[in-house]
Amino acid sequence: MRDQARGASACDADDLTRRLARFIVSSGFDDLHRSVRHEGARTLVNWVGCAIGGARHQTMTNAMAALSPFFGPPQATLLGRPERADVLHAALLNGIASHVLDFDDTHIETAIHPAAPVAPAILALAEHRGVSGRDFMAALIIGIETALKIGVAVTPAHYRTGWHITGTAGVFGSAAAAGRLLGLNEQQMCWALGLAAAQPVGLQAMFGSMTKSFHPGRAAQNGLTAALLAQAGLTASEQALEAERGWLQVLSTASDTAAITAPGWEISNNSYKPFACGLVVHPVIDGCIQLRNQHGLTPDMIDRIEVAVHPRVMDVTAIRDPATGLEGKFSVYHAAAVALAAGAAGEREFSDAVVRAAPIAALRGRVFASIDPGLGKAQARVAIRLQNGDRHAVFVEHAVGSVENPMSDRMLEDKFRGLSAAILPPGQTDRLLDLCWGAEELADAGDIARQAASTTLDRR
Amino acid sequence: MRDQARGASACDADDLTRRLARFIVSSGFDDLHRSVRHEGARTLVNWVGCAIGGARHQTMTNAMAALSPFFGPPQATLLGRPERADVLHAALLNGIASHVLDFDDTHIETAIHPAAPVAPAILALAEHRGVSGRDFMAALIIGIETALKIGVAVTPAHYRTGWHITGTAGVFGSAAAAGRLLGLNEQQMCWALGLAAAQPVGLQAMFGSMTKSFHPGRAAQNGLTAALLAQAGLTASEQALEAERGWLQVLSTASDTAAITAPGWEISNNSYKPFACGLVVHPVIDGCIQLRNQHGLTPDMIDRIEVAVHPRVMDVTAIRDPATGLEGKFSVYHAAAVALAAGAAGEREFSDAVVRAAPIAALRGRVFASIDPGLGKAQARVAIRLQNGDRHAVFVEHAVGSVENPMSDRMLEDKFRGLSAAILPPGQTDRLLDLCWGAEELADAGDIARQAASTTLDRR
Repeated sequence: MRDQARGASACDADDLTRRLARFIVSSGFDDLHRSVRHEGARTLVNWVGCAIGGARHQTMTNAMAALSPFFGPPQATLLGRPERADVLHAALLNGIASHVLDFDDTHIETAIHPAAPVAPAILALAEHRGVSGRDFMAALIIGIETALKIGVAVTPAHYRTGWHITGTAGVFGSAAAAGRLLGLNEQQMCWALGLAAAQPVGLQAMFGSMTKSFHPGRAAQNGLTAALLAQAGLTASEQALEAERGWLQVLSTASDTAAITAPGWEISNNSYKPFACGLVVHPVIDGCIQLRNQHGLTPDMIDRIEVAVHPRVMDVTAIRDPATGLEGKFSVYHAAAVALAAGAAGEREFSDAVVRAAPIAALRGRVFASIDPGLGKAQARVAIRLQNGDRHAVFVEHAVGSVENPMSDRMLEDKFRGLSAAILPPGQTDRLLDLCWGAEELADAGDIARQAASTTLDRR
Repeated sequence: MRDQARGASACDADDLTRRLARFIVSSGFDDLHRSVRHEGARTLVNWVGCAIGGARHQTMTNAMAALSPFFGPPQATLLGRPERADVLHAALLNGIASHVLDFDDTHIETAIHPAAPVAPAILALAEHRGVSGRDFMAALIIGIETALKIGVAVTPAHYRTGWHITGTAGVFGSAAAAGRLLGLNEQQMCWALGLAAAQPVGLQAMFGSMTKSFHPGRAAQNGLTAALLAQAGLTASEQALEAERGWLQVLSTASDTAAITAPGWEISNNSYKPFACGLVVHPVIDGCIQLRNQHGLTPDMIDRIEVAVHPRVMDVTAIRDPATGLEGKFSVYHAAAVALAAGAAGEREFSDAVVRAAPIAALRGRVFASIDPGLGKAQARVAIRLQNGDRHAVFVEHAVGSVENPMSDRMLEDKFRGLSAAILPPGQTDRLLDLCWGAEELADAGDIARQAASTTLDRR
């Protein structure tokens, strides 16, 4: 958390929304440092993979059943599915899919998952209208930056109030990114931000239900709608953020408005989850995979696994004998066992079948966890005793996937392939990965969406 | 305002949402007293008239231009227009139209305009699916009741925070009403209320911009979407109102949860505006029309008009020489002049043409206003001196349109005809009025929507 004073009043500048609008419309692709652009590409790769991986989730099945009778023209791809939808519904549905596995990107300071409310809006728009890769990537990065900077300004007060910030701040990101692709001028962008401010989505009370992933999807759709309406001249307050009874004052008890127009790129602090479960248990998984790979361990060699963890781990993931894939995500014992057995902890390792497999259950029984209050949240110690009496141990200081120890591009690709494996053929997955990495070179960014379509709803 | 304690905690019952859901799904048409059903019919008449009257407003033109490329099948009528839209877009657009003139109904205690976020959702659904008039009217009344009871529970804290309560509480009304027509069970209705809670719309900072009327339209669309998703099994918190980090706690600093399941019908306190301007100037208009009609006054007979008003009137409506129709709405002088000249104060009397007409300007110049702090907000005194030396005066204790002095059914019909006059032929207007008054007898409530379609976008 930043060490800065956060004033009680949100109204210390009466042109805040306009200055933000000016930043959004006037920043160019060439203003983006190469490292920022590369983080944008990593964000895109991670997001497309998550959207494909979540495309067949029950939440998507239900949302499709409810909404498809109202679809407009088939303007845009639903990633990982054979159906198409109008641009507005594609933004909603791809947004749901990309968050439904809780496997998408995270900006740790704000707890915003920034890609899910932004990327689906502009990918659908790009596919429909034809947009260059440069324009698309600039919109993605500047849209995400808009959401993150507003999020930083109201952190921690806004989240503590109970808002799901990914939807409430994310909608500004979608409006900004879509507004750029639509070519809004500064005045129109002010209105788009106003229309976005009037449509916040997401309460933390929904966590644990399907509505959680609806939040970023709806935020994407709302921000896109805001940009379209603003382009057509539908006016809004031009001080939507700073006005009395505007977004900052109504949705947060405190804010640091200077953060909204501060220099620097928050997207550089974006992070990606290597494992398909809560961040809390990632250090244990990291340590187990390290030992497995360093010493060529197989389950039959292992006698006992001891893990020492931050206290929060045992609050959240203490299920000793999980019976389902979902319960497996809340079991540090299962997490350690699959990490050692498979060297991975993707969606497959948290499936019902793997959780119920006898060899995994046996290995789980040999995992022992203890709390060490001296450890940080991103830290763990793992010690393994082998059948032959050998002992191996590791201290994880920063779990892989943290900002301090980010996933490599290669790891992001492996994650992408893992998510896509049950959905798209390998050749298509390869072509899609190439398009994502090279997005800024594309003549038509919509090619990414088209290459992510599936010919069937059957699992491969 | 009610005199009752409003606790600091919103969490005094852990089954509040479920009890509300039970009320919504289990109340039947036969549980509604005849007076409640008649108020429902009055609400419908007033709402349909407002939606037709607002159908050609610039806000609608802009929204249509932005969104029509994404329309789905032509399932539902846009009232007063020739185009059709899918059910979801029809809910949005008819909701905008019905609020854009600021002429729709008002529940004074909460400041909710209850029909605009509820009626458009179920009228579009009724037209698409075929729904009996009884089911339609029960859904309308129970949906409105849901929004109003939640509104009462958070009045005045929620509104004072800066929320536009018509959108933030209205979305529950739309979800409830649409959920009834879709036949949701209690469990599904809990989810629908949860999905509604996650999508509040509307900040008071948007007042004075086109986004204000977008609020109830989007609330109608969001509540309808919530009900559709819940029907398809998309889960949400089942304690969306009372949960920690749920709607009551996040969107209000205080609430009286007992109001949500209290007996009685808040719709009985619904009120309708007789005049197409802010409520503040209605007592003056009422007094002028009374004197005109009692004494057969015409402008040439009048020497001087003196009005004594509540102080707020001169804060808001003190424009001496209005130049446009909109400025005319903020001129107590113009309001008094048209009331005396035309015996009415509808949209026509606040048009640019009437404001600029020389005889009206001359009469305006003979109006003099003074503040009397002893008068209530719904009160005024009007005194008129004629050219022949006669004097006539009236004290308005409760302006017409207040709950104490409601518009008669005949006045509501006249208002409806005034709003429809420039849009639909007289015969069609008559048939539509008959359908609205007799809605509960209809075999297919969608007939109301179909009868409200226009064959042209030209003004009649």
